[in-house]
Amino acid sequence: MVNNHLTSGDTLYKWAEELFPICRSITGDGVRKSLQYLCEKIGALEIFSVPSGERVFDWNVPQEWNIVGGYVDYENGERIIDFKEHNLHVVGYSEPVDKIVSYEELNKHLHSLPDQPNAIPYVTSYYKPYWGFCISEEKRKLLDPHKKYHVCIDSSLKKGSLNYGELIIPGCQSEEVFLSSYICHPSMANNELSGPIVLAALCKYLLARKNRYTYRIAFIPETIGSITYLSRNLPELKDKVIAGFNITCVGDERCYSYLPTKYGNTVADKALKHVLNWATKGSFIEYSWLDRGSDERQYCSPGVDLPIASFMRSKYGTYPEYHTSLDDLSFISSQGLYGSQELMASVLGLIDSNTIYVATQLCEPNLGKRGLYEQISKKNSVKSDSRTLLNILSYADGTNSVLDISEYLGMYFFDVLEMCSILESNELLVKG
Amino acid sequence: MVNNHLTSGDTLYKWAEELFPICRSITGDGVRKSLQYLCEKIGALEIFSVPSGERVFDWNVPQEWNIVGGYVDYENGERIIDFKEHNLHVVGYSEPVDKIVSYEELNKHLHSLPDQPNAIPYVTSYYKPYWGFCISEEKRKLLDPHKKYHVCIDSSLKKGSLNYGELIIPGCQSEEVFLSSYICHPSMANNELSGPIVLAALCKYLLARKNRYTYRIAFIPETIGSITYLSRNLPELKDKVIAGFNITCVGDERCYSYLPTKYGNTVADKALKHVLNWATKGSFIEYSWLDRGSDERQYCSPGVDLPIASFMRSKYGTYPEYHTSLDDLSFISSQGLYGSQELMASVLGLIDSNTIYVATQLCEPNLGKRGLYEQISKKNSVKSDSRTLLNILSYADGTNSVLDISEYLGMYFFDVLEMCSILESNELLVKG
Amino acid sequence: MVNNHLTSGDTLYKWAEELFPICRSITGDGVRKSLQYLCEKIGALEIFSVPSGERVFDWNVPQEWNIVGGYVDYENGERIIDFKEHNLHVVGYSEPVDKIVSYEELNKHLHSLPDQPNAIPYVTSYYKPYWGFCISEEKRKLLDPHKKYHVCIDSSLKKGSLNYGELIIPGCQSEEVFLSSYICHPSMANNELSGPIVLAALCKYLLARKNRYTYRIAFIPETIGSITYLSRNLPELKDKVIAGFNITCVGDERCYSYLPTKYGNTVADKALKHVLNWATKGSFIEYSWLDRGSDERQYCSPGVDLPIASFMRSKYGTYPEYHTSLDDLSFISSQGLYGSQELMASVLGLIDSNTIYVATQLCEPNLGKRGLYEQISKKNSVKSDSRTLLNILSYADGTNSVLDISEYLGMYFFDVLEMCSILESNELLVKG
Repeated sequence: MVNNHLTSGDTLYKWAEELFPICRSITGDGVRKSLQYLCEKIGALEIFSVPSGERVFDWNVPQEWNIVGGYVDYENGERIIDFKEHNLHVVGYSEPVDKIVSYEELNKHLHSLPDQPNAIPYVTSYYKPYWGFCISEEKRKLLDPHKKYHVCIDSSLKKGSLNYGELIIPGCQSEEVFLSSYICHPSMANNELSGPIVLAALCKYLLARKNRYTYRIAFIPETIGSITYLSRNLPELKDKVIAGFNITCVGDERCYSYLPTKYGNTVADKALKHVLNWATKGSFIEYSWLDRGSDERQYCSPGVDLPIASFMRSKYGTYPEYHTSLDDLSFISSQGLYGSQELMASVLGLIDSNTIYVATQLCEPNLGKRGLYEQISKKNSVKSDSRTLLNILSYADGTNSVLDISEYLGMYFFDVLEMCSILESNELLVKG
Repeated sequence: MVNNHLTSGDTLYKWAEELFPICRSITGDGVRKSLQYLCEKIGALEIFSVPSGERVFDWNVPQEWNIVGGYVDYENGERIIDFKEHNLHVVGYSEPVDKIVSYEELNKHLHSLPDQPNAIPYVTSYYKPYWGFCISEEKRKLLDPHKKYHVCIDSSLKKGSLNYGELIIPGCQSEEVFLSSYICHPSMANNELSGPIVLAALCKYLLARKNRYTYRIAFIPETIGSITYLSRNLPELKDKVIAGFNITCVGDERCYSYLPTKYGNTVADKALKHVLNWATKGSFIEYSWLDRGSDERQYCSPGVDLPIASFMRSKYGTYPEYHTSLDDLSFISSQGLYGSQELMASVLGLIDSNTIYVATQLCEPNLGKRGLYEQISKKNSVKSDSRTLLNILSYADGTNSVLDISEYLGMYFFDVLEMCSILESNELLVKG
Repeated sequence: MVNNHLTSGDTLYKWAEELFPICRSITGDGVRKSLQYLCEKIGALEIFSVPSGERVFDWNVPQEWNIVGGYVDYENGERIIDFKEHNLHVVGYSEPVDKIVSYEELNKHLHSLPDQPNAIPYVTSYYKPYWGFCISEEKRKLLDPHKKYHVCIDSSLKKGSLNYGELIIPGCQSEEVFLSSYICHPSMANNELSGPIVLAALCKYLLARKNRYTYRIAFIPETIGSITYLSRNLPELKDKVIAGFNITCVGDERCYSYLPTKYGNTVADKALKHVLNWATKGSFIEYSWLDRGSDERQYCSPGVDLPIASFMRSKYGTYPEYHTSLDDLSFISSQGLYGSQELMASVLGLIDSNTIYVATQLCEPNLGKRGLYEQISKKNSVKSDSRTLLNILSYADGTNSVLDISEYLGMYFFDVLEMCSILESNELLVKG
């Protein structure tokens, strides 16, 4: 049902390979370059610039950060850490620095993970002036405590802009389904190249279809980006959005997972849970609102209260490779990306076609005269399909959507929908 | 409490014996003869005729079918199948036929049950022109494939009428309780002579009582009969019916069962479940709406939405004898019929007396001055009865019916009702 | 949080020792003497007199009963039973008597407990004229059946008054929290000196605090006292009381227990259950409305419908010493009384501070610029406290009280309240 217009897993993985080396942060050239890349793949994306310092609710858009390079050398010039080798080596939003420091001083600016000695951690300091380097614990242990070190970061923090991409795909109705992911992480694969890549593929999928709802897709930096986006669009979003999904950590092949809206009772929750349940035969993880940590924090905050849930595979914070250099291209796969695309396309397909159908006839209709029923009534002769048709009709009393009926019948939404189409074409159901 | 005015099990079984041989179908002389018989037993029944061809919602009343006889002979006149031996031998609504056919041709018109080799199946073809015979698998195997056969059915399909019986027993209030069963099955006992027989007994029971509600009872052919009845009476039914029951398959001695209304939340559901629970100590079967197959399909359909549930013992379709010649008089019993009558009389008694009582006194009343309480208060001296009286009074706040209070107290409705009467006669409760 | 202004356990026990010997009943000098004692301890208590015969709903205030003494002697003057030894020896509300009776006649007026041979039972006859004595089964067995007995009760039943004490402690708001206990039991400790003693301590606690709600405290005789109090104050109570507690049997050290309001869904139920759950780690007894037997019978009766639950340790009727001379000062303890005082003070503190807070910011606020968040974001760096702050803010959408949020977060109310104060002082929450 949803296979048309999907992008192949190999293509998705190639996009990941091409985007991986770019050094992204919440602002800067890396973000713009990544948005430009996604724009080309999708074929359309409006890129917005919000000037540094602009007030966004309780926050201000930060200065723009760019980095040319960074390294730590022994005084003799022997290089120990080099940004060119991995962009995680420099703490995100590091101020420029260029000086000789003692081992003790250096240590105050070094970050490593004793429990994961071969991993470079991902560290940022967006809102407190700081500079620092990240290094594997293995390498850190080799540093000579008696030597002096030349630390150099060639970065800039200046008035500039925060960028995000937005695509609005008009549908038959002005009500909107909202989708978002992050374009603010440097070279890590699951968290987060998988999200924007799957989201770009969903854009292509939606552009190729005739949709009932209007789709609003945002590629934003996490937290400050969603806050900025909400501060510019909240009244319209509150007016139009009937469901939405934050898409993150969807590139691996592990278990799917879902983080609900605050009260877990929106169409977004019901649709995502239904598809997850049928697609995985029930083996997915349902997190609690208290486990949240992504942009649902903003979307469901008091006064915002949008019906937006989060879709994931291995959730941020739950897998050991998270926020380290180990979350690399080997952690994700073409199958992992494709599966997430396909599942989410089903969810969107469900929402888009989740009509309320109403029966046109009082009492059970005469299926026989419409060729929908075996004519000779014998013991056990009722065909299972005509039985299902009658079950659907019995619930089509104007109070139930196709999804509601699917849950009553214990059937997959798209199987019920197909039956509804048969009934509609036989004028036994009309859209309510 | 409900034993007065019930008909004895032996009498009920005698009715079954007398009605059993009649060849009933959804129309025809057998239906009229059966309705006439029931009218005599009840003492009152209005019989309605609806002309063939009349539009009833999505259907048309079919032509009237009557049958004189039918047989299959070898060409030499040796009789193989004879309608006179069992009226299940001819497919219901068979067109007339009188010709010589080959073994192959005959086989296209024969119905048997390989898994039940000694049973004649029950087959009908109400809406597709057809003729056919039903035969036991044992007998079928003996047919000579090399011979020719004389098939003869002396039936007629003509403009006539569909008949049903209706009895309205006026009560103090115009709100109605609706009851129905089927008069369309040929010689089978549980499904369905048991239903109309128990229903006739309930008519006598209700006629002998002073009732609060008005009772509307319909003896109808299944499906087309309920559709016809609804098409003629729907506005009035929707206006008046507060609860109802479809009564079917109630003649055997096996487990009682219940099939709920679509959402299972009406007074009919609650009353039937309460009585079943207390009468059977919880050992009854509760089916799902998805298991339905009787006239609740029409009564609870969208736009009809009447609060009508089904009461059964061995449900149609669940017992091996169903819709075969094995569902004969040995399958039902006088005890089985009587028990169903008694249980349903309790359900109707419950609904009829399910008042909302309201306490007349603020705070607990002085039971002692009314002789309802032991006067000397000692350790453990409170009599259990006065305790129950106070429990009932505590819930009599205008939001709870007697049935609601019974569920709160974990007591049988009629025990609570008796206590309510004591309290009412002591002016501690008034009807709300 | 609630330790300030609590009375020490030793003091509470001393009060019990001093009040124990007084012979209380539902009326009379013992009640007035006890109320006067409590008034002195609390420092304030208005004592009301309601004349005998006054109509109170379905009841009349009974005559006032006073007793000087009572005994049973052999004809030779040898004393067998003496009121001076224990005031339980004379049946409460016994008429005066002074005559010689046979052993058989005496037996009609004797009460003992075969299963508890060393206990004097507690027996009353408030509403049926009677006289009688209570005696241990051991002693009763020694009585000589061939002798005559001199029975003498020097009591009076006259027009007088029913007394109760009331204290109203005005708060910032006119809505009230209601508390009550009993002053009608003769020399028994848990049921009931523990209730009025803990209640007197709570009066002192509330008088020493600045309260949001107004507190209304009543020291009343059981049943007839609450009926009398309600008949005089019902419109005002219905208008003002938002929660309340009946406090009884709270002096021992056994398990805490709770008896809900009729439907168990009031703020009183939720607050008491929350504190019990956290204070006892879940090991408390939750009774059903059907187990009731104290003044919640009146407070929750139809038409009264006040949100008043009962707080207890060993519930009346559930412990063997109940309503016998074995419920003496050894059954209660200073720790038992203090624990109940402390727990109830927490419940009152919860209700008094159970505000609805509303977040002031759209989206998550910038905790960092307020010093509420660690500035450098690393893997696993979010402090648990800032996480909790954000959790609280996420639920502060105007639909949830602090108690609701505590239940969502699985945290103790007072821990959440402390966090709310931090957020309020940082202008991130305002009272809704």
